[in-house]
Amino acid sequence: MSNTEHGLKGRRSGRRPGASGSREAILAAASRQFASRGYNRASLRAIAADAGVDQKLIAYFFGSKQQLFVAAIGLPLNPAEVLPEIVAGDPTMIAERIEALLVEVLSQPALHERLTGVIRAAASEPEVARMMREFLGKEVFIPVARVLGSDDATFRLNLVGTQIVGLMMARYVLEVEPLASLPAEQIAAAVAPTLQRYLVGPLI
Amino acid sequence: MSNTEHGLKGRRSGRRPGASGSREAILAAASRQFASRGYNRASLRAIAADAGVDQKLIAYFFGSKQQLFVAAIGLPLNPAEVLPEIVAGDPTMIAERIEALLVEVLSQPALHERLTGVIRAAASEPEVARMMREFLGKEVFIPVARVLGSDDATFRLNLVGTQIVGLMMARYVLEVEPLASLPAEQIAAAVAPTLQRYLVGPLI
Repeated sequence: MSNTEHGLKGRRSGRRPGASGSREAILAAASRQFASRGYNRASLRAIAADAGVDQKLIAYFFGSKQQLFVAAIGLPLNPAEVLPEIVAGDPTMIAERIEALLVEVLSQPALHERLTGVIRAAASEPEVARMMREFLGKEVFIPVARVLGSDDATFRLNLVGTQIVGLMMARYVLEVEPLASLPAEQIAAAVAPTLQRYLVGPLI
Repeated sequence: MSNTEHGLKGRRSGRRPGASGSREAILAAASRQFASRGYNRASLRAIAADAGVDQKLIAYFFGSKQQLFVAAIGLPLNPAEVLPEIVAGDPTMIAERIEALLVEVLSQPALHERLTGVIRAAASEPEVARMMREFLGKEVFIPVARVLGSDDATFRLNLVGTQIVGLMMARYVLEVEPLASLPAEQIAAAVAPTLQRYLVGPLI
């Protein structure tokens, strides 16, 4: 990681790229721009200008706008990347793939703090709710619905979202017991069949 | 409703009971006391003292501490009252009873504002999260688990809670589409089998 900063070619900005200060400046600018303009209207150009860096540095450090958003919000994984993998394979094995992913996510010790931060901000600040809604719609619900292919695929992905956000809220924000203390495996096993049905099972 | 204030007997306080000001004073005092002491440690005696009314007036207007809490929080229904009814009857009809209840709740036009208020406060203020956690544990999870009777009943009720709070968060706070705009019936039909399984179905 510490050597990646030397790999950038063709920069035109006068600032030193890759200094860890640039990465932090981009994240801070991204948070400001996404919150004030929403996900759809915030541009990489404006974020680069706000951070005082060359726009290429954003692509270099983070990749796409979607990936920058996930990093700026502090999401522990990128739903736009993991959900297509979940739904693209053998549909009879969706519950198994979800269960493995949930165990991984729910076992991360650092997760508590980051997720409570995201949920608190989305619940209490309308502009954060808006940028989450825009991000989820554009980068998750619509593209993953295409992979899923069913007529009601967007609704199905909404339902998956309700179960995930409620699980995080109950375990990490409200901390209800025994849910807050139970091992990830037990929770993942109980919830995975719900998500499988929401994705590909009968809804009525 | 307007005549109920004349039915109180045996009051000892010097204040006029039943004036709508007393009811509001009790609600405001309850909100303060629950938030500062938590659900378990807040007492009706202290709430009455804070409101400047006789403690009997609380029972008269609201009934129990649990019912006062629900009124003070602004919950659209009392989970401590509706959940035992859901789980006590024929277990094969739980999904039908849940679906009917969800349709009723999700169809209330005033719900949006009240629920977003509750969820926002619980997500952003740790003391509100604590009082919700204490209320749910003492008045919902533990007593309803007794009705449910299974060894893992409290965990099952936690899981029900995750789906309900996530549904409210996604529909009313994040307002993701199409979930936010769909008719209550379609959402209730999709979610009810999940709640039935969490209550009485196989968890693994």
